[in-house]
Amino acid sequence: MAVKKMKIGLCGLGTVGSGVFNVLTRNAELIAARAGCEVTVTHIGARRDNPNADTSNVKVSRDIFAVVNDDEIDVVVELIGGTTVAKDLVLQALSNGKHVVTANKALIAECGNEVFEVARNNNVTVAYEAAVAGGIPIIKALREGLAANRIEWLAGIINGTGNFILTEMGDKGRAFDDVLKEAQELGYAEADPTFDVEGIDAAHKLVILASLAFAMPLEVEKIFTEGISKLETRDVDYAAELGYRIKHLGIARKTDAGVELRVHPTLIPKDRLIANVDGVMNAVMVWGDAVGPTLYNGPGAGSEPTASAVIADVVDLARLLSAADDSEGKGITCVPTMGFVPEAIKEQPVLPIEAVETAFYLRLTAEDKPGVMSDITQIFSAAGISIEALVQKEPTTGEATVPVIMITNKTREGNMLAAIEQIASLPVVQGEVVRIRVESLG
Amino acid sequence: MAVKKMKIGLCGLGTVGSGVFNVLTRNAELIAARAGCEVTVTHIGARRDNPNADTSNVKVSRDIFAVVNDDEIDVVVELIGGTTVAKDLVLQALSNGKHVVTANKALIAECGNEVFEVARNNNVTVAYEAAVAGGIPIIKALREGLAANRIEWLAGIINGTGNFILTEMGDKGRAFDDVLKEAQELGYAEADPTFDVEGIDAAHKLVILASLAFAMPLEVEKIFTEGISKLETRDVDYAAELGYRIKHLGIARKTDAGVELRVHPTLIPKDRLIANVDGVMNAVMVWGDAVGPTLYNGPGAGSEPTASAVIADVVDLARLLSAADDSEGKGITCVPTMGFVPEAIKEQPVLPIEAVETAFYLRLTAEDKPGVMSDITQIFSAAGISIEALVQKEPTTGEATVPVIMITNKTREGNMLAAIEQIASLPVVQGEVVRIRVESLG
Repeated sequence: MAVKKMKIGLCGLGTVGSGVFNVLTRNAELIAARAGCEVTVTHIGARRDNPNADTSNVKVSRDIFAVVNDDEIDVVVELIGGTTVAKDLVLQALSNGKHVVTANKALIAECGNEVFEVARNNNVTVAYEAAVAGGIPIIKALREGLAANRIEWLAGIINGTGNFILTEMGDKGRAFDDVLKEAQELGYAEADPTFDVEGIDAAHKLVILASLAFAMPLEVEKIFTEGISKLETRDVDYAAELGYRIKHLGIARKTDAGVELRVHPTLIPKDRLIANVDGVMNAVMVWGDAVGPTLYNGPGAGSEPTASAVIADVVDLARLLSAADDSEGKGITCVPTMGFVPEAIKEQPVLPIEAVETAFYLRLTAEDKPGVMSDITQIFSAAGISIEALVQKEPTTGEATVPVIMITNKTREGNMLAAIEQIASLPVVQGEVVRIRVESLG
Repeated sequence: MAVKKMKIGLCGLGTVGSGVFNVLTRNAELIAARAGCEVTVTHIGARRDNPNADTSNVKVSRDIFAVVNDDEIDVVVELIGGTTVAKDLVLQALSNGKHVVTANKALIAECGNEVFEVARNNNVTVAYEAAVAGGIPIIKALREGLAANRIEWLAGIINGTGNFILTEMGDKGRAFDDVLKEAQELGYAEADPTFDVEGIDAAHKLVILASLAFAMPLEVEKIFTEGISKLETRDVDYAAELGYRIKHLGIARKTDAGVELRVHPTLIPKDRLIANVDGVMNAVMVWGDAVGPTLYNGPGAGSEPTASAVIADVVDLARLLSAADDSEGKGITCVPTMGFVPEAIKEQPVLPIEAVETAFYLRLTAEDKPGVMSDITQIFSAAGISIEALVQKEPTTGEATVPVIMITNKTREGNMLAAIEQIASLPVVQGEVVRIRVESLG
């Protein structure tokens, strides 16, 4: 493929900018194997250095416009935020014939129609996966993965700060103001929390999702927005008593009469998956006429989660540019069939199950007499296996045996099998020892 | 764009085939606006008709090989299943220079390495989004959305039949055999349920996910597989007592010693989102080094959910072929920035919030004396609003008022506001009426 090296100009080196730089550096080889070409930051525009990013091998300009005017750059990554300087920067980059990747939801929501038109006129692309729901590839799901569907509605927890506050109010009965203060101390919320708690940030994201779903222009001013700042803890509690949880949802729904676009606190039946998305996590639920309901969940903000989305856009561009530059190919195999270029796919050792480490659930049937538990636990202790939980059930009337249930900590399966064999051979243990693996998935 | 019409040859007209045909027909206009060209089934190969699909306007051949040898076809959609005839068919299509879209997990898992090589040699693509987790765009997420990440592990509920059985065992204390029989009657499970309940189907899907995650060849024989047929209801119950739910997971994890590839019943802490994915729904959780945890949830099987994934692949191809054939463009804007071609994006009426219909949570403070509830409910009744739940709390000692909490059914917001105004003006009601919208998201 002709594009051997894609050159990135990075504008902004704050939380997300340093994340993008660090992930592109750390995973350079892996990303090249996925993209089909090297992807390298060759020019950074930032007013100041960031101690979290070692940029000593890269050209750094204090004037960010030097990056968009750098002839060598293929793609400009805009991570300075806001709708003033960022807008000028993006428009200049597009006019210079450079592709733009941005995480800037305010820019897309408020100026997207104009920005996209400039991009079209210059035959370049603006990509913005990171603008909604951080690391969750929700833009890609709506634009591509669900392309067969008439989208009927979507609903999202698309502001992590707000969801953190609601989760704390619900789980611990804390008041809004109290949790907000903590969120600010933890760096989740800005000194001026209006954007997050009054739903403005969520409205920016919702208008992008709604436009993608319903083929309508970006018009953020049409969104009905109600914040969570007036929500009382007792209402969160009463809702729970009635079987609901309260989430700050962005909802877009197509009806015969018109489109609903609204951000507000919402009661959701507590058995819905999205009602159980807690803390700073985001989730978007989409209902398509063919697929029915799908849900996408993950971190909605943060340095490397947002970087993950930014770089996904960069890789998309790298694959397309490589394919377009490939005079031999037809330009149709730009996403490698197995995700990596064929040369990168290698035989790898697969562990036999005996070498796999997991925790275990065990159930056995033991005689109901003294010393039994001691015999069992001694075997585990000798094998270096510790017991996290142990329940001995009451014997059923007339039975001389009781079920004993245990959860162990992690150990190699081979080690566990040997210990179980010893336990099963104890005279006080009857029948087989039932064994199910445990994963925390944390 | 040059490709004005993409011609699809559909092989197989069973459950999924009829779904693909029906969705492509029903959503033809919308799909064209997303793909940038018409996408039409022009030739169907099927041994018999399907009463669920009206194919009277399409050429139908009883010999499915007539489809792959039809010179007019751009893309062959293989939905006959299995690894014998389907393999011959796919290889013939690729040799004929046609792109292939398939939902056939057994074919990809068992013959993928060979099939993909033939595709590469013929400079065409094999797409298989529908092969794993039905309508959930998980292949796209792994190949593209998470391309920045070193995948550390993934874990999925990737067999809906098995998950239905486990959910019933857990929720209703039913025995495995009993639920399996019902699943067979409902059409969720085959007459020979081995593929589903012994984890073979899950292993097929897991090897595809693992290859995408870790850049390794498809080697399904290396997967450790343990089914759910020996699982006892009492273990599901004991696990629940200890705070866990049991799911049949496919797990792939990269460790320093090697890759873990395993399908087995697994205890998961019950507060994990994936532990709450119930019934025939699927979910895949992926942990990437940059993004952390993301989760993808939706229907893992069924006619139109699977069709949704098949058509997503078709649209990807249509966009790429249109862009590649576009002599004026650079072939880099193949996915429209806002998901639809610019001409399709139209101003649409947005409903004012007063016209939006939702259910409501209400809380008010009322004097604790007879007749109060009657006054309130009469106002709602006159407004055509019915009350789904009503809780009157006990008065706090010394207080003459009590909180009253209600959940109403759906009504227009304007109607609700008028009713609330009347209620707030009742002499027995004090202060404001708190109002939060309710969505069932069902």
